[in-house]
Amino acid sequence: MAVRRHIEQAWHASARGAGFLEVDGPPLESLDLFKAKSGDAIAGELYAFNDKGGREVALRAELTPTIGRLVATHGQSLKKPIKWYAVPQLFRYQRQQRGRLKEHLQFNVDVIGAAEVGADAEVVSVALDALRRLGLTSEHVYVRVNHRAAVDQKLAELDCADNEKVLRLIDKGALTAENAAGALGTAAVGELQAWLTEQTDGDAHLGEFFAACEDFGVREFVELDRHIVRGLDYYTGFVFEIFDRGLSERAIAGGGRYDNLVEKLGGPSLPALGFGMGDVVLGDLLKDLKLLPAAPARLDALVVPIGADMLGPARQVVRRLRDGGQRAEAPFAPIKVGKAFKLAEQAGATRVFLVGPDEWADGTVKVKDLREGGETVAYFAEL
Amino acid sequence: MAVRRHIEQAWHASARGAGFLEVDGPPLESLDLFKAKSGDAIAGELYAFNDKGGREVALRAELTPTIGRLVATHGQSLKKPIKWYAVPQLFRYQRQQRGRLKEHLQFNVDVIGAAEVGADAEVVSVALDALRRLGLTSEHVYVRVNHRAAVDQKLAELDCADNEKVLRLIDKGALTAENAAGALGTAAVGELQAWLTEQTDGDAHLGEFFAACEDFGVREFVELDRHIVRGLDYYTGFVFEIFDRGLSERAIAGGGRYDNLVEKLGGPSLPALGFGMGDVVLGDLLKDLKLLPAAPARLDALVVPIGADMLGPARQVVRRLRDGGQRAEAPFAPIKVGKAFKLAEQAGATRVFLVGPDEWADGTVKVKDLREGGETVAYFAEL
Repeated sequence: MAVRRHIEQAWHASARGAGFLEVDGPPLESLDLFKAKSGDAIAGELYAFNDKGGREVALRAELTPTIGRLVATHGQSLKKPIKWYAVPQLFRYQRQQRGRLKEHLQFNVDVIGAAEVGADAEVVSVALDALRRLGLTSEHVYVRVNHRAAVDQKLAELDCADNEKVLRLIDKGALTAENAAGALGTAAVGELQAWLTEQTDGDAHLGEFFAACEDFGVREFVELDRHIVRGLDYYTGFVFEIFDRGLSERAIAGGGRYDNLVEKLGGPSLPALGFGMGDVVLGDLLKDLKLLPAAPARLDALVVPIGADMLGPARQVVRRLRDGGQRAEAPFAPIKVGKAFKLAEQAGATRVFLVGPDEWADGTVKVKDLREGGETVAYFAEL
Repeated sequence: MAVRRHIEQAWHASARGAGFLEVDGPPLESLDLFKAKSGDAIAGELYAFNDKGGREVALRAELTPTIGRLVATHGQSLKKPIKWYAVPQLFRYQRQQRGRLKEHLQFNVDVIGAAEVGADAEVVSVALDALRRLGLTSEHVYVRVNHRAAVDQKLAELDCADNEKVLRLIDKGALTAENAAGALGTAAVGELQAWLTEQTDGDAHLGEFFAACEDFGVREFVELDRHIVRGLDYYTGFVFEIFDRGLSERAIAGGGRYDNLVEKLGGPSLPALGFGMGDVVLGDLLKDLKLLPAAPARLDALVVPIGADMLGPARQVVRRLRDGGQRAEAPFAPIKVGKAFKLAEQAGATRVFLVGPDEWADGTVKVKDLREGGETVAYFAEL
């Protein structure tokens, strides 16, 4: 939980810092909603079931369909652009493996109702801002960006007969003349491969995007990569993925424009983009890079009653300290002072209060400072 | 989300203040776990289903079984007493109504491995501390406490033939001679009714408990009520419920000792107690009492580019402000200054930065203070 909260805190801070409002939706949604976005096959990857009323429902594996539904339903009354973020718990019916669990948290950031390239750069900069807050730099992570229109245009030039097939091959890193047979000829595959690996930033949209990234101070993180097309059918333009620069090249986040989704779900036509960033791969990466903080202290102060008669006074001291914003506890039964100091140390406490009968009769307690050493006497009334 | 986060913050602060560690478990558990704690009938109240592998699973409706399972599995290696808290999302298969939704958040606090009455008082004081942090006083809420042993002893004195039946009648407020027929005679029912309404604090355990509440500064919240027996079969001793003092008398939290649960789930015999406090009734109560804060501001500063050429410089200003911990945004396209001020006001921003070409050429921006009024000029390099 300490790791999860550490990561979440960075997510909240980066999204709020950019003026995004937090939202959430139900973890259990109608199965149809997920099918509407991703096709019928998606049901196989979800915890989908019939509820007792016979409804087909599923635990969400992503938040975007819910966001799309909310905007389709309430979008007319909401000020555009809508800047929303969420930290939903997501579920996938799959065998657990490193980096992919049955349940995880995801940082979700969306801008709806803005077609401008500045929105693309803002969304990417929020993702990077979260990673920077966690101690990651451009030496650890980078963003591969692309624009689907540029790829589609290239495929049109090459007289491609089946764009979707070729995009899937590019996405999987499986573009060969053999695999592309029927969609592209051998010469066209060769030309496409060459074009994909040209690291140019030649189109207007991405040129503007890189300039905006420069303004946002994240240009050093961002690279053009024509291979990034994102498998999901619903991406419509700008797409990106954030990777670890290490050998494992794990994907930390991914997103892009999905300008058709809101309309598909019965709402108005609205440009939209967003990304998801999970806590599992990110947590593994932070751990590998030793960027996770030490477990936080559980206590600031341990209050030790010297004898059973002092249990009550110790609770009074605890109350005072808690009211003053300190994390404090007293054992439920008297313990030996030696054991108390060990317990205080294990809990990360910096002070031990000793509540003895003689001192208490004088209205005082002894205070041991575990960091600086030394002992002082404090008046209870002044705690 | 603002309301939910406001409530959650109070929960986290009160539990951490008392040295509790945050934990969580999976939202989806084996159905058997819930049956082991509450009996087979519980399945009817849960989102229970067979997963694709044919496993009987259920979305959790409470966290205690999971806590019991964790302690039964790992309890031997954990230092006692274990002080854990959690803020799980819980699910119930039921028709929605005021105060009861299909999905809610719950504040869960447990102490495992401590039989002392001080643990009972600490757990109650954490619950009350959370409510106090939300602005509730002993004029708004109170705690009814009881000890099951005292009720059981009274039932033994009365030669009760079916304790469980009578306890359920007490819990439902349906104890009449007619309903209790077979378990208690008419005279015994009369004697029991008189005993239940005597507001004495005559037994040793509750006497100690009230004294500890006094030490913890929460005595004014706490009352003995012999009617509180808690329906759940697994409570074994001290029990309590927190109520709204208003006409509606809504239950805000409930808990008590469940000394047998860990052993029942295959672990060692360990005394345990805890409570659950949901966000739905509590949120309704805070709303009714007008104790919910106004919606928090979305922005500290709005940065307005004067013309399309200033979009980039505006992003640079935004970057500076965000790096300095301010929540700041710039529109994705130029907007009129009048509209910008309206937008800033709606977002709760206190400053508007105007980035115009002449000022920018001098390395400056104009800053309008929306609270104090007035305009200053600031150097970009000094932001």
